[in-house]
Amino acid sequence: MTSAPDPFPVTFSAHWQEELDQLFVWRRDVRHFHTEPLPEAVLDHLLRTACLAPSVGLSEPWRFVRVDNPQRRAAIRQNFLHCNARALEGRSGEDAQRYATLKLAGLDDAPHHIAVFCDTNPEQGRGLGRSTMPQTTTWSAVMAIHTFWLAATARGIGVGWVSILDPDAAIAELSINPHWQFLAYLCVGYPADPSDTPELERRGWERRNPARRRWLHR
Amino acid sequence: MTSAPDPFPVTFSAHWQEELDQLFVWRRDVRHFHTEPLPEAVLDHLLRTACLAPSVGLSEPWRFVRVDNPQRRAAIRQNFLHCNARALEGRSGEDAQRYATLKLAGLDDAPHHIAVFCDTNPEQGRGLGRSTMPQTTTWSAVMAIHTFWLAATARGIGVGWVSILDPDAAIAELSINPHWQFLAYLCVGYPADPSDTPELERRGWERRNPARRRWLHR
Repeated sequence: MTSAPDPFPVTFSAHWQEELDQLFVWRRDVRHFHTEPLPEAVLDHLLRTACLAPSVGLSEPWRFVRVDNPQRRAAIRQNFLHCNARALEGRSGEDAQRYATLKLAGLDDAPHHIAVFCDTNPEQGRGLGRSTMPQTTTWSAVMAIHTFWLAATARGIGVGWVSILDPDAAIAELSINPHWQFLAYLCVGYPADPSDTPELERRGWERRNPARRRWLHR
Repeated sequence: MTSAPDPFPVTFSAHWQEELDQLFVWRRDVRHFHTEPLPEAVLDHLLRTACLAPSVGLSEPWRFVRVDNPQRRAAIRQNFLHCNARALEGRSGEDAQRYATLKLAGLDDAPHHIAVFCDTNPEQGRGLGRSTMPQTTTWSAVMAIHTFWLAATARGIGVGWVSILDPDAAIAELSINPHWQFLAYLCVGYPADPSDTPELERRGWERRNPARRRWLHR
């Protein structure tokens, strides 16, 4: 849309920028997967790309864990079922019905399960930049997940973020350092039902709010 | 690198994917800016793009605030100086010197200041997906910041995230709803010193760790 006054060493064409906007549109929370696994080289590439995410003090606090053990996967599935049932308890009427029809987890179909943690007090980075806002460490790991997600979308690969899990139980079920913070359980694979519209919107749960696309001013 | 077994409705070419990797490489935390302002249409486009970020339950909890008032900018600058001085107190020797030479804020030069908040208990989204991990609301707003940052980089625009601020003081200085969470103070403008290497690495503060680019297994 515009060019920098100084020569920026890498330039992205206007057409490329438009495709980037499309990437953001198609970066969906995928819940329906083909069971066919991805090539390992592709998964490795996505992890390396995720490590290009910003991190406070260059602390790289993200920890990506492949979960392949069937017993551990089954434990996570139980964790989800338990938490999902409890989330349903608090809801009544049409809302609850609609909520129940949302297949929130691709846990059964996705070929790859990736749990993501944060080392909230890493040696790397020597504390720089997080004196007043220590949560910036966690937020760095969240941006690594988001980077993984975008890089996957560009390759036609779907990612679904399962957040309805008891984090302490997940840490125990996966035998993870109890000082790490559980952030996400990602289902990864080829999407079976790709769409550019959020599933929650298609199913009438919620819509985007145009007010969010306007600035507040101070 | 590979194609999906089902036709994915939008495809990104292998060449486009390589450029996306370059976008992640060049998405730097910029601290040196030209003072020339950006066109308003470009800023508006970046905000609309940021709103394509994932959000738990489609809650869109991000709140982007343009800070143009000189008194408010001056108050944020004082907030930063105060917190930066306190962060320095705890450090000694060579580390402290190196820390002091890091110009951590583009506050004085960047033409645009954007504060980002999270409404941590939004009505939108009706609580979906955050029953066990309420922080997912905050993490959604963090991914909106990251989306803004990437879209800016694609247009040769630099973003610097100032995290050394007292969040409660920032909320008061900007007259923001005290129930919102302060996440980031972004300096935005054309970069004066673009680089593909993190400034912290160029200045010998910290390096990326190759161990992060390997999977853990469970």
